[in-house]
Amino acid sequence: MRPDNRAVDQTRDITITRNYTRYAEGSVLVEFGHTKVLCNATVEEGVPRFLKGKGQGWVTAEYSMLPRATHSRSGREAARGKQGGRTLEIQRLIARSLRAAVDLEKLGEYTITIDCDVIQADGGTRTASITGACVALVDALNGLQRDKKLKQDPLKFMIAAVSVGVVDGQAVCDLEYVEDSAAETDMNVVMAEDGRMIEVQGTAEGEPFSHEELLEMLALAKTGIGNIIEAQKAALAAG
Amino acid sequence: MRPDNRAVDQTRDITITRNYTRYAEGSVLVEFGHTKVLCNATVEEGVPRFLKGKGQGWVTAEYSMLPRATHSRSGREAARGKQGGRTLEIQRLIARSLRAAVDLEKLGEYTITIDCDVIQADGGTRTASITGACVALVDALNGLQRDKKLKQDPLKFMIAAVSVGVVDGQAVCDLEYVEDSAAETDMNVVMAEDGRMIEVQGTAEGEPFSHEELLEMLALAKTGIGNIIEAQKAALAAG
Amino acid sequence: MRPDNRAVDQTRDITITRNYTRYAEGSVLVEFGHTKVLCNATVEEGVPRFLKGKGQGWVTAEYSMLPRATHSRSGREAARGKQGGRTLEIQRLIARSLRAAVDLEKLGEYTITIDCDVIQADGGTRTASITGACVALVDALNGLQRDKKLKQDPLKFMIAAVSVGVVDGQAVCDLEYVEDSAAETDMNVVMAEDGRMIEVQGTAEGEPFSHEELLEMLALAKTGIGNIIEAQKAALAAG
Amino acid sequence: MRPDNRAVDQTRDITITRNYTRYAEGSVLVEFGHTKVLCNATVEEGVPRFLKGKGQGWVTAEYSMLPRATHSRSGREAARGKQGGRTLEIQRLIARSLRAAVDLEKLGEYTITIDCDVIQADGGTRTASITGACVALVDALNGLQRDKKLKQDPLKFMIAAVSVGVVDGQAVCDLEYVEDSAAETDMNVVMAEDGRMIEVQGTAEGEPFSHEELLEMLALAKTGIGNIIEAQKAALAAG
Amino acid sequence: MRPDNRAVDQTRDITITRNYTRYAEGSVLVEFGHTKVLCNATVEEGVPRFLKGKGQGWVTAEYSMLPRATHSRSGREAARGKQGGRTLEIQRLIARSLRAAVDLEKLGEYTITIDCDVIQADGGTRTASITGACVALVDALNGLQRDKKLKQDPLKFMIAAVSVGVVDGQAVCDLEYVEDSAAETDMNVVMAEDGRMIEVQGTAEGEPFSHEELLEMLALAKTGIGNIIEAQKAALAAG
Amino acid sequence: MRPDNRAVDQTRDITITRNYTRYAEGSVLVEFGHTKVLCNATVEEGVPRFLKGKGQGWVTAEYSMLPRATHSRSGREAARGKQGGRTLEIQRLIARSLRAAVDLEKLGEYTITIDCDVIQADGGTRTASITGACVALVDALNGLQRDKKLKQDPLKFMIAAVSVGVVDGQAVCDLEYVEDSAAETDMNVVMAEDGRMIEVQGTAEGEPFSHEELLEMLALAKTGIGNIIEAQKAALAAG
Repeated sequence: MRPDNRAVDQTRDITITRNYTRYAEGSVLVEFGHTKVLCNATVEEGVPRFLKGKGQGWVTAEYSMLPRATHSRSGREAARGKQGGRTLEIQRLIARSLRAAVDLEKLGEYTITIDCDVIQADGGTRTASITGACVALVDALNGLQRDKKLKQDPLKFMIAAVSVGVVDGQAVCDLEYVEDSAAETDMNVVMAEDGRMIEVQGTAEGEPFSHEELLEMLALAKTGIGNIIEAQKAALAAG
Repeated sequence: MRPDNRAVDQTRDITITRNYTRYAEGSVLVEFGHTKVLCNATVEEGVPRFLKGKGQGWVTAEYSMLPRATHSRSGREAARGKQGGRTLEIQRLIARSLRAAVDLEKLGEYTITIDCDVIQADGGTRTASITGACVALVDALNGLQRDKKLKQDPLKFMIAAVSVGVVDGQAVCDLEYVEDSAAETDMNVVMAEDGRMIEVQGTAEGEPFSHEELLEMLALAKTGIGNIIEAQKAALAAG
Repeated sequence: MRPDNRAVDQTRDITITRNYTRYAEGSVLVEFGHTKVLCNATVEEGVPRFLKGKGQGWVTAEYSMLPRATHSRSGREAARGKQGGRTLEIQRLIARSLRAAVDLEKLGEYTITIDCDVIQADGGTRTASITGACVALVDALNGLQRDKKLKQDPLKFMIAAVSVGVVDGQAVCDLEYVEDSAAETDMNVVMAEDGRMIEVQGTAEGEPFSHEELLEMLALAKTGIGNIIEAQKAALAAG
Repeated sequence: MRPDNRAVDQTRDITITRNYTRYAEGSVLVEFGHTKVLCNATVEEGVPRFLKGKGQGWVTAEYSMLPRATHSRSGREAARGKQGGRTLEIQRLIARSLRAAVDLEKLGEYTITIDCDVIQADGGTRTASITGACVALVDALNGLQRDKKLKQDPLKFMIAAVSVGVVDGQAVCDLEYVEDSAAETDMNVVMAEDGRMIEVQGTAEGEPFSHEELLEMLALAKTGIGNIIEAQKAALAAG
Repeated sequence: MRPDNRAVDQTRDITITRNYTRYAEGSVLVEFGHTKVLCNATVEEGVPRFLKGKGQGWVTAEYSMLPRATHSRSGREAARGKQGGRTLEIQRLIARSLRAAVDLEKLGEYTITIDCDVIQADGGTRTASITGACVALVDALNGLQRDKKLKQDPLKFMIAAVSVGVVDGQAVCDLEYVEDSAAETDMNVVMAEDGRMIEVQGTAEGEPFSHEELLEMLALAKTGIGNIIEAQKAALAAG
Repeated sequence: MRPDNRAVDQTRDITITRNYTRYAEGSVLVEFGHTKVLCNATVEEGVPRFLKGKGQGWVTAEYSMLPRATHSRSGREAARGKQGGRTLEIQRLIARSLRAAVDLEKLGEYTITIDCDVIQADGGTRTASITGACVALVDALNGLQRDKKLKQDPLKFMIAAVSVGVVDGQAVCDLEYVEDSAAETDMNVVMAEDGRMIEVQGTAEGEPFSHEELLEMLALAKTGIGNIIEAQKAALAAG
């Protein structure tokens, strides 16, 4: 029995609030149950040095948890003087996933930075971040087109992400913190809207996992992400 | 004429939302117009090394702006590897002000850390932070008493803060960003609920300011802070 | 046609040299073709602070590339003052994988650190690192037992790793650099000797990948890792 | 009764030695009693990036205490790898105050940096720094005019600073260390030579302070700064 | 009696392996007994900023020990976030010595960086580094000439280095670790092939040393370095 | 002809002022001509962790140049976030030299830190630092004996240092900046009062130097240091 009696393939309630703050070119508060992440997209002219003169754009991301997003306070990375390995790993994952969704040549020499700041963490912050960041990115890209700065839409497809795992021998979708900390296997899946995969990161937390378990988790991810992409599209349509 | 036709002594709309996140011992979203700061209080057992064995507690604070809290994106301090001078100056001010409101001996060997994270910035983030942090602190102190960890209330008095300044030769209260960036003089005032002063920080941005201008600004600060403390008390009473 | 006419499921020549340096408790030079990684295991008494008094041990890893392991020189991380995100991500992966292979309670209060230093890089450095590190770890664990510091063998099973990918629409095993930089999909797989999975990290470098491609890559990984584990066991038997 | 029987409005003996070192464009040792600060002004062509092409100059400052300027040794900031919050706060104050005294457009594209290094600290190091830095700045500006690099004098007015406070219920001027550490309120005031204010920073160290106490402190500051500006002018006149 | 019955003026077995790795423009593994250092030379177009437009080149060096090059593990400098004083001192010595051997004007606007990474340390790592680095440098300079990028050979002379010391009152040449840690005096000497000196760094580890001891050590260094330069030349001739 | 017509073996005017600041246990301003270094000795109870419980003391040193000690301003190391290689090398030399002069067992569990801060630099700052630091150290050791904290004098002998070099083919003693920057060879020598050597660091800045030149430089160093030690003793006797 899962918390809140969720079915094994059922995601938590997902809420996507656009225009959450005033200044960003895309600003989305995404909630997966109690997990809340603010995803702000910033558009800037120009590209990083390694892309200068190549006629293409860049999409990058940064990720951070507010110190008290979690049950106990974790030290502020700015005060410690560096971003931790987990933070860097997550923001590299977010950025890579978003770039898979964008035709960087169509973007032209713009850099889009998506800041994912976790307000409250109850499991699945990286997959929620990707999900919200995609919506903020779409808002930013639409703004560039509305302002006639881009002639074509650089978006190749929507992407979304979910965490799946094996808890007590049962594959489940969209783990919250109590499930996550008890899971034998934890897997984050990022998919395009057509169901193809962009990232699959599975980790055995206890015993190794079997091929069958992998397949079960992937099936749950596919169902879950399908629903999440519907929620993204509904939010975008609403605006 | 001020933006939104505010009177010179009129603060912006102030909203104080308690229990904004789930895990912190005090969690307050404070809004002064478009300025929004999340103030989370964390209670931890023990004290910093320099206080070990002295039978008293400690109150400290950290401050940060989300990268896109402002009109243009500013680099993330964790990524740059250090907190800037402005950040350190502000968090020292917040912490010092809060400690003035607490009897650290009555607090016993607990450390309370107030994280002030600016979600959206439209001027006055440090004074909004102090105002929200005080409410979060009260919630944390009340929790310690409710849990029988403290026998006496360590709170000496409520504190609140407001920015005042001189714009176009006119002293005004609670400057928003467009006023702040045009101000000849900028002053932040922290007061106790009885009107006595805890911090006064006035800076001539253009020409030096006169004794008379200082007195006018202090008078506006007193009126403004009176109203803000009422808003704090109403929020605490509502809960 | 692959470089050196390798079959799609064929790994490069794998050489595992034990006792490569004199001082480490396990010292392995692992070579996957031109990729060469020195894996040194260090045994130290005691555990990190977060494990103090829990009666268990710890296994961790660090990873680094010599500045000129690659075609062009990359700046030394010590000189830049921090380890990059890629480095941190890889050493977290190595450490997590090794811990899956060890019963930390049987290890007792020892910390084993595996340093993986890449002497020469031609693709697959992280999977070569895991493969060599496992052998160095076994040598270190055997040393502890030989010295009567451990009564039981903490090793649960051997682990090994390989990179697989899709190049020109064809799934292939153990990519070297020219393949890796042309791959549409890149996947690193860590398996236990019984074929169950410890880590699966697949990334679409170009287009998203399909479920069928994922299955093909996993099948190649299983074959490849089987061969690699034989090489590990032969090296350990030789000693 | 104050140390050395000083009257409440009496500053310590103030000594201003120009040309203290050989190389700086302005070099002043300022002494307020036992507090000794070396203020060196450096003139460099060019301006920071954010001012490029705006046809104006820049004035900035750095502050540091020698490790053994104080009763017990404090760690060297260069060895710790960062400047502390107090240091950053003070150097921001010094720089802001000096900029208030200079017409940056008349300065043209020069940057003047004032290094304030505290040789010995007995209270009031930031106000002594501002006082000495102003004299070093004047020497540097005069040098630029003498060398025909500037046609007009960019100096708007002299500035000086003093600390005032409330000790044992009595407002006093120019606190030395034993007074400072016992003060209920501590206030630093920077004024222009005509008595108008550039910075006012008052802090309640114990109980909040009243409006009347603020007025008393300001009056003492005005008297004290008047005397200090005379000392500055006498030093500059001396040749 | 020395370890391995070496004569007082006898160096350890010296092995110089060129082309040790595939990608560097010069790649030398140098072994002095159990001390093993990999010296990789990288040629890059351009020079550091302070040399821009001066029509000359630059030679620099970096030095590092693998964490487990020694009997016990030392923390990785990249993980600690900075290079230690010993590291910086050694790499400054290596670079300075190499620059003495090169006519930087003949080098033209190229920068050659020699990375000296200690694989195994048994005393004398800095002198072995200089010895191996010189061979890697020669290979890199020869490559530039072969590729017609340089018309003249910038090499002025070969250099080599050895450590000498006083152990139990006896001057000895090429100390290994057990001697080094017992030495009363430790001296590193860098010489040109004609016997003139480039660097002499002698340190009293216990009692001060006498003029006579200095002369004895220098004589041993001269003999030792003569043999080492023969080994360098033989290695270069072999290729 | 040397600047100021100094003879080749003549040092600059040397001034040693004790008790230069009020708080340090030893405080010496040492001047070699225009080179001025403030050397403050701090005595603290306890020893660094690696010496805990060994019943001996420790002597260490830190070195820094004020930003405008030199003709042009150099960036403040605290602001850059790290000490440079030159700084670390010099402070390691100073500390090592001072430890050679002290019987650390007789010192007991005290740590003495000598801060050498260069007020003005005209060549020879490291040797002036050692010279002044020795006097500050003696004052600190005498204080410990006067306070009955030590029963025996831990000082083994006085030490002093001087720079020598070859300029225009002529060996000279105590180089000032204009000589130093033109020198073909630069050598720093630290000696005990009996003329034996503690450190010898010779560097060829241009061509390598000969054995004869080395001997000439050492002879000049011996004469110079003899005079400097007389100046130290006169200063100590005066007090």
